[in-house]
Amino acid sequence: VSQADHFFWTLAERTTGMSPSVIRETLKLSQREGIVSFAGGLPSPKTFPIDALREACIAVFRESGHAALQYDASEGFGPLRELVAAALPWRVQPEQVIITSGSQQALDLIAKVLLDPGAEIVVERPTYLGALQTFTLFQPAVLSVGGGVDGVDVDELRQKGSGARFIYALPSFQNPTGRTMNEAGRTALCNVAADIGLPVIEDDPYGDLWFETPPPSPLAARNPDGCIYVGSFSKILAPGLRLGFLVAPKALQAKLLQAKQAADLHTPGFNQRLVSRLMADGFFSTHIPSIRSLYKVQRDAMLGALEKEMQGLDVHWSRPGGGMFVWMRLPTNLTAEALLPLAVSEGVAFVPGAPFYSELADHRTLRLSYVTPTPQEIALGVTALARAIRATVVTNSQ
Amino acid sequence: VSQADHFFWTLAERTTGMSPSVIRETLKLSQREGIVSFAGGLPSPKTFPIDALREACIAVFRESGHAALQYDASEGFGPLRELVAAALPWRVQPEQVIITSGSQQALDLIAKVLLDPGAEIVVERPTYLGALQTFTLFQPAVLSVGGGVDGVDVDELRQKGSGARFIYALPSFQNPTGRTMNEAGRTALCNVAADIGLPVIEDDPYGDLWFETPPPSPLAARNPDGCIYVGSFSKILAPGLRLGFLVAPKALQAKLLQAKQAADLHTPGFNQRLVSRLMADGFFSTHIPSIRSLYKVQRDAMLGALEKEMQGLDVHWSRPGGGMFVWMRLPTNLTAEALLPLAVSEGVAFVPGAPFYSELADHRTLRLSYVTPTPQEIALGVTALARAIRATVVTNSQ
Repeated sequence: VSQADHFFWTLAERTTGMSPSVIRETLKLSQREGIVSFAGGLPSPKTFPIDALREACIAVFRESGHAALQYDASEGFGPLRELVAAALPWRVQPEQVIITSGSQQALDLIAKVLLDPGAEIVVERPTYLGALQTFTLFQPAVLSVGGGVDGVDVDELRQKGSGARFIYALPSFQNPTGRTMNEAGRTALCNVAADIGLPVIEDDPYGDLWFETPPPSPLAARNPDGCIYVGSFSKILAPGLRLGFLVAPKALQAKLLQAKQAADLHTPGFNQRLVSRLMADGFFSTHIPSIRSLYKVQRDAMLGALEKEMQGLDVHWSRPGGGMFVWMRLPTNLTAEALLPLAVSEGVAFVPGAPFYSELADHRTLRLSYVTPTPQEIALGVTALARAIRATVVTNSQ
Repeated sequence: VSQADHFFWTLAERTTGMSPSVIRETLKLSQREGIVSFAGGLPSPKTFPIDALREACIAVFRESGHAALQYDASEGFGPLRELVAAALPWRVQPEQVIITSGSQQALDLIAKVLLDPGAEIVVERPTYLGALQTFTLFQPAVLSVGGGVDGVDVDELRQKGSGARFIYALPSFQNPTGRTMNEAGRTALCNVAADIGLPVIEDDPYGDLWFETPPPSPLAARNPDGCIYVGSFSKILAPGLRLGFLVAPKALQAKLLQAKQAADLHTPGFNQRLVSRLMADGFFSTHIPSIRSLYKVQRDAMLGALEKEMQGLDVHWSRPGGGMFVWMRLPTNLTAEALLPLAVSEGVAFVPGAPFYSELADHRTLRLSYVTPTPQEIALGVTALARAIRATVVTNSQ
């Protein structure tokens, strides 16, 4: 408990764990003129279907304007819940779906319903920073497990997960690493979780953005009673509408719904109806492939540039099969934090990897997003990044 | 800590205080065919400016579609923060404004930043049920103070408020009572609060909806460093856009902003830009008076019908000068819960008052909303209500 100022405000204990987002600060850096930014986690605005959304707006106002503008059900707009349930690749009842104000809110609701101060949770090492920020407000003890394309380290999971409230995982094109758990890794994770009685929170904002082959089926499909699945329209439609959802076992519905009601009564009904129209019209069946094609070209540009420019440098990077991110590891003795100002002066920005770790941070890691710059900008940016790394290597060896 | 089902989900301690909204259940009742509903807290859909919003949508897509659909600042869209600050009747810096997903979310953020389990808070007796639901999730000890048009009972406030984190109050056209604190009552509340070092959370969704004279200036205007002010566009524009805001002292900004970021990253930028356009165009200067005129006619219809129909019954009710609600007190020995099924069978629904009390509930109270039915329906509904009350009085005296 601390005093906010000379006045009489007393802050909640939980605020001591709150800190400004490092990424927010980095993003400010990267918005300077002439900087190629690989720092953002923003989808490409080229993919935003302005014409389709404008037509949907006009139609919603014409057909159901009053309902779209009135208070609405906390669980979400019925037809959207049905469309979401039907679109998922396992048997989901519409009653299991709660529409949320972005997938970020789903994490807030889950934390409210499942976390007490000191309760243990398990996350991947590294994991999505925004989830760590949300969970931290509910004061859990955050444990982490290592992992890779073969899934998480199952021995570590068995050891750390047995007393935990849940494991939080992003199995497909993870933020920040871009990695995807393969079939065997998913099976292993689910088997251990079921064995030790560990619930799974599966966050899947990127699963639809595959370039060559779809990722294996979700964890939730393998163990629906032991999993809450979190989805988002931010990466396949537009983040500015703030639309996500969660799919929960029926036993948790009532509490999650009451948490949703207390959080914001409901997600904007107007926005929900826009997306419902698009889904019902089959819009996503052509729109999602068009995003895949765009991002694939940019991923190829980044991987190609990295192959070319990083030659002779002790630098390693992931080769994502989808999503938005490449994960890079720098040479010994070079931290991403030390590299960042040099990179910015060379004309490129990225996000250091350390904030994505809840513990045991690897300061040689960094995240590169390839979705907003053009292939030409990507080539320039990677060249600038190689220049910055090379400069430090030369300096170090002198 | 309890088990949600045969599976392995462990629920947070805070969920034990969560319960389904009584009002939600009552609303279902009132949606039956042929029932005049005074139960809702919904604004009249007649006031929703569909044409103006459609034009605003088209303009936003034309002028700033990409920005409106992209991730946005957690604090809100800059121009909207400026417009909100400028529209408030005391000196507010745009930096003090955080745009929220409805005013309900502002309550969630405030609770997150200011409440620990067991911390005392003070609320009016009765108060807004939705606030109680939100605060309860953060496990405070909820104390209450009586009050009326002269403000809260200052002796009770002095006694109960000295160790509390804040007092939560709705000074203008309160939900559920419809009452408004007069100038002297506001001064007295602010003086006691300053004296005992008690922060004030002022919730003001109805202040613009006055019928004869505006309410006295907000509590926040009298003590900006000791007050968080919460506002909403739900009652003056449309709830379905989910737009509200809070105005906080600068000392609290950073923590509230981090809580907002963790809650849902930001409020939909698209929705914020719609409202910005309307505000910038001066739309509200004609729109709000049109809502006042409509609701005044309906308030008059309800008060007129009550005068006429309740004659000879020991029934008392408030005469609100604005807002959406009349508060009624039934004769001795008649509870609102007992009256409700009889009223529904006579063709009218209302909300019992008891759920609006955090303690010391007066079961003879009930809330009547006059904003959705027409004057003709209001007359029918009040007649039905009088019939139901009279039937119980006859029964009781037999």
